Amino acid sequence: MSDVPQVSAIPVLGLPEIVVDDDLGALIVGRCEATGIELLDGDLVVVAQKVVSKAEGAIRVIAYQVPSPEAIELAGTLGKDPRIVQIVLDQSRRVVRAVPGVLIVETVHGFICANAGVDQSNIELDGVVTILPVDSDRSAREIRDRLRELTGCEVGVLVSDTFNRPWREGSTNVAIGVAGFDPLRDLRGSNDDFDREMTTSTVSLADEVASTAQLVMGESGRVPVALVRGVDWIPGEYSADRLLRPAERDLFR
Amino acid sequence: MSDVPQVSAIPVLGLPEIVVDDDLGALIVGRCEATGIELLDGDLVVVAQKVVSKAEGAIRVIAYQVPSPEAIELAGTLGKDPRIVQIVLDQSRRVVRAVPGVLIVETVHGFICANAGVDQSNIELDGVVTILPVDSDRSAREIRDRLRELTGCEVGVLVSDTFNRPWREGSTNVAIGVAGFDPLRDLRGSNDDFDREMTTSTVSLADEVASTAQLVMGESGRVPVALVRGVDWIPGEYSADRLLRPAERDLFR
Repeated sequence: MSDVPQVSAIPVLGLPEIVVDDDLGALIVGRCEATGIELLDGDLVVVAQKVVSKAEGAIRVIAYQVPSPEAIELAGTLGKDPRIVQIVLDQSRRVVRAVPGVLIVETVHGFICANAGVDQSNIELDGVVTILPVDSDRSAREIRDRLRELTGCEVGVLVSDTFNRPWREGSTNVAIGVAGFDPLRDLRGSNDDFDREMTTSTVSLADEVASTAQLVMGESGRVPVALVRGVDWIPGEYSADRLLRPAERDLFR
Repeated sequence: MSDVPQVSAIPVLGLPEIVVDDDLGALIVGRCEATGIELLDGDLVVVAQKVVSKAEGAIRVIAYQVPSPEAIELAGTLGKDPRIVQIVLDQSRRVVRAVPGVLIVETVHGFICANAGVDQSNIELDGVVTILPVDSDRSAREIRDRLRELTGCEVGVLVSDTFNRPWREGSTNVAIGVAGFDPLRDLRGSNDDFDREMTTSTVSLADEVASTAQLVMGESGRVPVALVRGVDWIPGEYSADRLLRPAERDLFR
């Protein structure tokens, strides 16, 4: 093979089903060692929201929900279980769109996505759903700190989730929490090869890294962690809030 | 390193400035050979729209444009050059949003994006812009056929462009043309690890591959081609139209 610099996505295989208070950092290090992967300085570690939520106990039991009149009415429009709608509303600032089968909200964190990220898939117990972590940046920092403690490596960490999009079919994996690196690659003010201002000036590095990771994570949830190696990133303490387009610059809310 | 299956993004370095009628397939093969990269069956070859447009002569000279009254009026709202607005309108079915500085349209191809993909950056001549290829699937097929002819390899090809998104900051690279593979990974009907129907059922494989490629292509345009290796894809003749969400299932038009 050539000496051309590459970017690689490497799945972390064989993680167990995650339960409350699991030490994700230690589990990741353990599985890397068991599968012959050495964590390196500069790696970006992508962790699926689902396992972060399960480790943090960010789950809800559908049977325990008492839906409000608002949830019952909305559930009628949507054709959904009012108790699940209640869980979604509890995680939301406002409803962005609601039509039969589709509920798009702005979450308490500021994400605009379907069902506030509430997810019934890949949970071993029927009747239990995950909600998004309270603060996915904090979740990412805790994993980053633990990885540093155990390996001495300076890595970046992303918590990711798959979101659908307007206009285009198919979900893509995006970052909902980050630690250790700037999730945006800001090219504003830089010039292109011909010394003119560039048209596309800011790249969502973190979302592109999350998408890269998903190519080896798969959607089945069996591989909830992957390393992305070889990416050029700027270290520092940033928040995934940088990836939220401010309402005043958003024409589609 | 371990035997864990990986996905790699490999830049194709050293391509010359592309001009009309350049044989992109031959240039890609030449640069792969020169940099020690062997093209393999199963590789996905991502080619930036900019070089496809230049090779196909999909360019417009701003000075040659005579703006219509509609373009002049819209340019007043936008604060843009009416001649460039005319080029955008010529490439559009309709205007989706127009506010000062921002013009979002549905292109003649069906993409919803800023400025119909008309781009002034990375063109060596001032006053010249690229427009999107007439048929990026055809462009991808031509490159795929040429790569097959020259190397015997069965690869997939994507033509990519960087689009901005509602709600989230930062552009991401997406596929606007494909050849040789299914751009969607359809999981509808499949079940998750716990035998329940999955929430996120269709993944935009092509857009995730385009994003992966951009991690080594950079935004400066200096690296307009990359290989993405190790992705599990379904061969066949498909169109990037599969990535267009039908209007009746789109709540944000």
